[in-house]
Amino acid sequence: MSVIRQDIATKNWTIFAVERSKRPDDFKDKRKRKVLKNFDRDCPFCKGNEHMTPADIMVLRDKSGNWTVRVVPNKFPILENDEIKECDNYLRNAGPYLEIDGKGNHEVIIESPEHNLNLCHMGLKHVEDIIGVYKTRFMDLSRRKSCQNVVIFRNQGFRAGTSLVHPHSQLVAIPFMPAFMRDKFYEAKKYFDGSGECVYCKIIEHEKKTGERVIYENEEFIAIAPYASVVPYNILILPKEHQACFAQIKQKSVENLASILVITLKKLYNLLDNPDYNYIIDSAPLKQTGNRYYHWHLEILPRLVTKAGFEIGSGINVNTILPEECAKLLRETAI
Amino acid sequence: MSVIRQDIATKNWTIFAVERSKRPDDFKDKRKRKVLKNFDRDCPFCKGNEHMTPADIMVLRDKSGNWTVRVVPNKFPILENDEIKECDNYLRNAGPYLEIDGKGNHEVIIESPEHNLNLCHMGLKHVEDIIGVYKTRFMDLSRRKSCQNVVIFRNQGFRAGTSLVHPHSQLVAIPFMPAFMRDKFYEAKKYFDGSGECVYCKIIEHEKKTGERVIYENEEFIAIAPYASVVPYNILILPKEHQACFAQIKQKSVENLASILVITLKKLYNLLDNPDYNYIIDSAPLKQTGNRYYHWHLEILPRLVTKAGFEIGSGINVNTILPEECAKLLRETAI
Repeated sequence: MSVIRQDIATKNWTIFAVERSKRPDDFKDKRKRKVLKNFDRDCPFCKGNEHMTPADIMVLRDKSGNWTVRVVPNKFPILENDEIKECDNYLRNAGPYLEIDGKGNHEVIIESPEHNLNLCHMGLKHVEDIIGVYKTRFMDLSRRKSCQNVVIFRNQGFRAGTSLVHPHSQLVAIPFMPAFMRDKFYEAKKYFDGSGECVYCKIIEHEKKTGERVIYENEEFIAIAPYASVVPYNILILPKEHQACFAQIKQKSVENLASILVITLKKLYNLLDNPDYNYIIDSAPLKQTGNRYYHWHLEILPRLVTKAGFEIGSGINVNTILPEECAKLLRETAI
Repeated sequence: MSVIRQDIATKNWTIFAVERSKRPDDFKDKRKRKVLKNFDRDCPFCKGNEHMTPADIMVLRDKSGNWTVRVVPNKFPILENDEIKECDNYLRNAGPYLEIDGKGNHEVIIESPEHNLNLCHMGLKHVEDIIGVYKTRFMDLSRRKSCQNVVIFRNQGFRAGTSLVHPHSQLVAIPFMPAFMRDKFYEAKKYFDGSGECVYCKIIEHEKKTGERVIYENEEFIAIAPYASVVPYNILILPKEHQACFAQIKQKSVENLASILVITLKKLYNLLDNPDYNYIIDSAPLKQTGNRYYHWHLEILPRLVTKAGFEIGSGINVNTILPEECAKLLRETAI
């Protein structure tokens, strides 16, 4: 029988229609993949094509002076890379509506000079560097007066909305707090007000106790298939100790995060044959490092299914596989 | 420059990154479409294959006794077609989480015996019949004790999540009120509390005055490209007079709704070469026919773009074309 589960943190619901369930093989993309070379002369992110992007914001180099990670402004930014000078009254009336100038920051982190490298196959030290760059850019953008929060995300594969296959992540600094984030913070705050606990700390405590939805854990981080998973193979990676903002991560923890991220992504790659996915770092803003109710985490959303009218119209997710089953399969997948 | 607009009804935000803008031709699906015949012997919805579906819930017939519209239970329902007998205490604790049995109703409206007919090319009288069936089923399901609301939706094309091309709509009766709907009703109620007005009535008044986002209107309905359109060619069709619940629609109005729906869909079909889309009827529950703050409407969401990590992680929509431009192009498109 179907069961409907509530996400305790967001209060969103997921219907698990398990009669429609599929095996991991059914999710695999049957289309023939193009075999990629490690250089594409038309790719603006490839080594040798640096002139095809705007100027670097930040560069990491190896001992020989070759770049290993580059940060550049997005050439087609969704928000103009221009600081809002005034923070007050920046909302304008437009008839009965509200609008803001589309200013903020939109940066691309080119994760490697190599065109065909999958993040999960990069060296651990290299992934640590990438996460270190996330942190540096998050902090820098967050300190600008206009910035309300920074969204770090990665689109892997065409089904995940990417237009360039070369490995990269993105950061967007937004000049307003969207209703979606405001509501998520508010729900977590209400939980804290009612219980004195962070809802994510509560989730970690419960999941560690039952173990059935735990995929992997190390000293500092845990990867779980969330109770009300919004899509098949939905994964959350959380710091086990309470931490509100991603930028609070220490160097030692960057190593542990890189390790759990690579292991989790490798398991997904092996089980589902290189699935498309998005991941997002969901964090309290830098100003709220003392926040006791929100708890940053990295969410992985494989793009295996298409949302249809029911999901869009009701805001209810429909999933065909229980997280307990996903977690078991991923635990058993070799890396 | 980009502009960011707020949806006055939901408080959600859309970034218009118009530098990324595309012409209607760029949105057209370049893949070769299979030419469909009017009968497919493997299609469970085709005339002659009635034994391939569960038994009819409702049938309309022509003068010769041939069926024209059929309603059947979904063979693979996301909620079991089984009434929840008890309405109280139906939420169960599962550790710190909440769950409900996945019971409700999930029905399919087979819109025509013909396999290859597009809704926008059906006769007006036939579309009136389909909308009449929506109303009958909405009312019947809403009266069940367990039902909190009914979602009517249509998935056109594979990018819209359909698995069967034969023209059909669906209804799902849900046994709980999702956070998404609750929040939408709550925002509309707050607007009413602050102004004494229905926010959708306000939108209609403003859009009629400026005219720039109006696509089409008739005596009773108006089709607009909403100010903070969530996707390119997003369309709302609203009754001009305040009406909270879809089931309050009168027979005369069914004719006008069928007419504006067919005209709007035909314009989309002609401008964008038969785009995939979802439409949803967004309505207050039947119990709330006296509700003065919510105003039912039909929302059309063409599936021309892919949501990526930023949209998923921030809840902010990114659109590449302003609704004023979409409305102008659609107004000018012949039917």
